[in-house]
Amino acid sequence: MRGPLIAVIGGSSATDEEAKLAEEVGRALGRAGAVLVCGGRTGVMEAACRGAREAGGLTVGILPGSDPGEANPFVDIPVVTGIGYARNAIVTQTAQAVIAIAGSFGTLSEIGFALGYDKPLVGLRTWVVEREGHPSVPIIRADTAEEAVEQALALAQTGP
Amino acid sequence: MRGPLIAVIGGSSATDEEAKLAEEVGRALGRAGAVLVCGGRTGVMEAACRGAREAGGLTVGILPGSDPGEANPFVDIPVVTGIGYARNAIVTQTAQAVIAIAGSFGTLSEIGFALGYDKPLVGLRTWVVEREGHPSVPIIRADTAEEAVEQALALAQTGP
Amino acid sequence: MRGPLIAVIGGSSATDEEAKLAEEVGRALGRAGAVLVCGGRTGVMEAACRGAREAGGLTVGILPGSDPGEANPFVDIPVVTGIGYARNAIVTQTAQAVIAIAGSFGTLSEIGFALGYDKPLVGLRTWVVEREGHPSVPIIRADTAEEAVEQALALAQTGP
Amino acid sequence: MRGPLIAVIGGSSATDEEAKLAEEVGRALGRAGAVLVCGGRTGVMEAACRGAREAGGLTVGILPGSDPGEANPFVDIPVVTGIGYARNAIVTQTAQAVIAIAGSFGTLSEIGFALGYDKPLVGLRTWVVEREGHPSVPIIRADTAEEAVEQALALAQTGP
Repeated sequence: MRGPLIAVIGGSSATDEEAKLAEEVGRALGRAGAVLVCGGRTGVMEAACRGAREAGGLTVGILPGSDPGEANPFVDIPVVTGIGYARNAIVTQTAQAVIAIAGSFGTLSEIGFALGYDKPLVGLRTWVVEREGHPSVPIIRADTAEEAVEQALALAQTGP
Repeated sequence: MRGPLIAVIGGSSATDEEAKLAEEVGRALGRAGAVLVCGGRTGVMEAACRGAREAGGLTVGILPGSDPGEANPFVDIPVVTGIGYARNAIVTQTAQAVIAIAGSFGTLSEIGFALGYDKPLVGLRTWVVEREGHPSVPIIRADTAEEAVEQALALAQTGP
Repeated sequence: MRGPLIAVIGGSSATDEEAKLAEEVGRALGRAGAVLVCGGRTGVMEAACRGAREAGGLTVGILPGSDPGEANPFVDIPVVTGIGYARNAIVTQTAQAVIAIAGSFGTLSEIGFALGYDKPLVGLRTWVVEREGHPSVPIIRADTAEEAVEQALALAQTGP
Repeated sequence: MRGPLIAVIGGSSATDEEAKLAEEVGRALGRAGAVLVCGGRTGVMEAACRGAREAGGLTVGILPGSDPGEANPFVDIPVVTGIGYARNAIVTQTAQAVIAIAGSFGTLSEIGFALGYDKPLVGLRTWVVEREGHPSVPIIRADTAEEAVEQALALAQTGP
């Protein structure tokens, strides 16, 4: 009945360009009927939630602290974890696919988790990671918000 | 816009009578437009979600394991924590008020958390806890599902 | 080679009498070669660590926050969880037996976890919990520190 | 009295060469009186613990599951978290410096956490991470176990 749960991960601060990209991703997810899952804070998370809300989508913010008031104003369901950045593991596990937009070290930890949990992972201007001797890393690169959302939705639908 | 988040806590196995009570609580919450938060599993949690769903309410299941498939069929938003029973801390922190129905030792841990986080806590046929020398315990006792839901909604509305 | 891991749970504030009891428990654990596990903070936890340290025992403090400086000065190994009171689940899981001394709502959550994880649990002036219709609760009541430690060590040794 | 807590992070499977490197790192940490913190499992973690134990060092294993038996045989203090890979956040927060050896996606999440928590991070044949537009990443590259341990100890001592 409801659409797939798609995580949008990215920094709590964002450039104008990154915020615009995140908002477009959110809007496309909302239009598609997906539930947007994120860390619930500012920056990329807030822009994505704003976009999703504008398109009538539902947003879930998995917060690090113990105060629901730390959610951005576009979060419909604030999940108050109180477990700090360990909540990054919950954001990625909850999603059926993950879209990473830019981001800093917290986003890098989420990329590690998404890959570790075998979640389809689409990257928009985000981290490049590699290790000599390690099999190649399955981050799918997208150039536009539309392309990222299409890929995420297509891959989420083939998930378990 | 959406109603308050109210947690229903109780055992993953339930007697017929407890399940009936939980379903009535869920139905009353759904009718009131509240969002039902619970541990997402069987027993009291499943009965409460079934009731809420019947009344058109939204249900959030905060799961202990890493498999969204462990959610009962009436969970709308499965939050996949992978943190085991430590997720009991998240269930109680996420709620603006908590209703405890019967339950076993997991429910007892959630009662401790709800009290520790200063959440309004309404008890229906649940644990009695006391300690000599400790100030009295603010569990509000209710006798019926309706009474429990009324109390929880009234107290949630006065919350921060 | 090293002795069993025994948790001491109790409030972050303690009366003089409770602190004296906790210190005696810690000292008896240290003498027995047990590793003392606790939440690492003040009150009962600090008194127990002080006793253990005096007797040459090793102490592990499983801290709720992200600052190792929140450990009391008698913690040898501060484990910095950053997961808040959800760390209560780790304290009890890590132990081969648990001794509860007085305590408030956090301790009540730990009692629930200890029982849920089937850990031997010895209580000293702590919570009394019961529920009509629920099978009886296996908290072993002790009257003195020595008796509590003897029971905990005996039961930990029969554990898996 | 005891030395600093140094985390060794790396994969639960390791090539012979990686295991040899990890064992050397563990041995050097043990000789220096450091406490070795790790995820407590196989591969790099086990090799590092074996090295530390041989040199008389103390080892702490922060386990993902609920069974202390999942610790490798060279763990002195098994911390049983039950929170799955979210425990990666605890491994890095507990350490005063982190040494990353090779590793897979779990290690990548720990690298993200170590950087996010501002922990000194030394890398041995591990991930290279970069993002266009992001300030440079402070992973200190080492070529030998001795060099990695020297760097980690020097930086840990300047920590808070």
